[in-house]
Amino acid sequence: MEGAEATRIMMGVNESTIKGYPHASISSRGAFDWTLQKIVRSNTSGFKILFLHVQVPDEDGFDDMDSLYASPEDFKNMKHRNRTRGLHLLEYFVNRCHEIGVACEAWIKKGDPKEVICHEVKRVQPDLLVVGSRGLGPFQSYLEISRADLSCRVFVGTVSEFCQKHAECPVISIKRRADETPQDPVDD
Amino acid sequence: MEGAEATRIMMGVNESTIKGYPHASISSRGAFDWTLQKIVRSNTSGFKILFLHVQVPDEDGFDDMDSLYASPEDFKNMKHRNRTRGLHLLEYFVNRCHEIGVACEAWIKKGDPKEVICHEVKRVQPDLLVVGSRGLGPFQSYLEISRADLSCRVFVGTVSEFCQKHAECPVISIKRRADETPQDPVDD
Repeated sequence: MEGAEATRIMMGVNESTIKGYPHASISSRGAFDWTLQKIVRSNTSGFKILFLHVQVPDEDGFDDMDSLYASPEDFKNMKHRNRTRGLHLLEYFVNRCHEIGVACEAWIKKGDPKEVICHEVKRVQPDLLVVGSRGLGPFQSYLEISRADLSCRVFVGTVSEFCQKHAECPVISIKRRADETPQDPVDD
Repeated sequence: MEGAEATRIMMGVNESTIKGYPHASISSRGAFDWTLQKIVRSNTSGFKILFLHVQVPDEDGFDDMDSLYASPEDFKNMKHRNRTRGLHLLEYFVNRCHEIGVACEAWIKKGDPKEVICHEVKRVQPDLLVVGSRGLGPFQSYLEISRADLSCRVFVGTVSEFCQKHAECPVISIKRRADETPQDPVDD
């Protein structure tokens, strides 16, 4: 096993949804820390981490309700701010890898996170995908109803569940620790 | 991360269902090889592997249709043979760990594999559970129907899906490689 190519671990990372907390989400940082402590350990040359951040086109919708747009410049600033936020997120993870001495790459895509992550897995072919999860308890991935008069299949699960089913590589979902749950558990 | 306790990886392993092939299943061996190549790598002192084999009480039902029971001794022999088969399975994995220099433990339990694996995860508290999967394509984990006159929830998925939902630790499911699929893909 010596001299083999590094194990390439892709991580889906996102920003916190907690208001006034412009950092990586609790579950993203938890998944990253877990990966370093439990998988990479001291073998920093054996792994390469690939960070993917998927920006949801309307993810700033709520904040924008408080914004006033009075000139084309305001829109440019907004777009610049969004772009900057995504970069700050990746900068955090890239800096931490650099400090520890683990090789990494990071990039941003736009779209539906679960679809984009699976698409990027297909394109990049990592050995392993690690995704964080808020761990909000038992849920169902699909509501599937089949009767003679009715057949439907609706995805109602989480990004991590979708990836476990559809990503073309092994997937680990790391649940957020109970003691890190914010005041509102749907926040992250 | 130096000097930290070893990462404890639990692996659920089972025997092949292929007739006349008394070895570990293809997916168990695949999951084990993947774990060594992609996670443990050269860092053999950083990991400890915990092998759990769950014997299904009636798993030899089919074979026994060809058996003739004429004395109490016949039953003793059958039980002995079953016990021996489980031990041979664990012996294979323990020997391979010993050759490579990875610490390990192995034990056998009886019962429903998905329930027993999750119960043992709760008891032993590994850092990670690795399970092999035949990878027989998309499926549903639960068929869930709720109407005023009817409410049921039936598990129709695989052991690996059940563990991903219910085990109290992160879980990796390693799908069998396409080029290792036996003649009948439900075999393993």
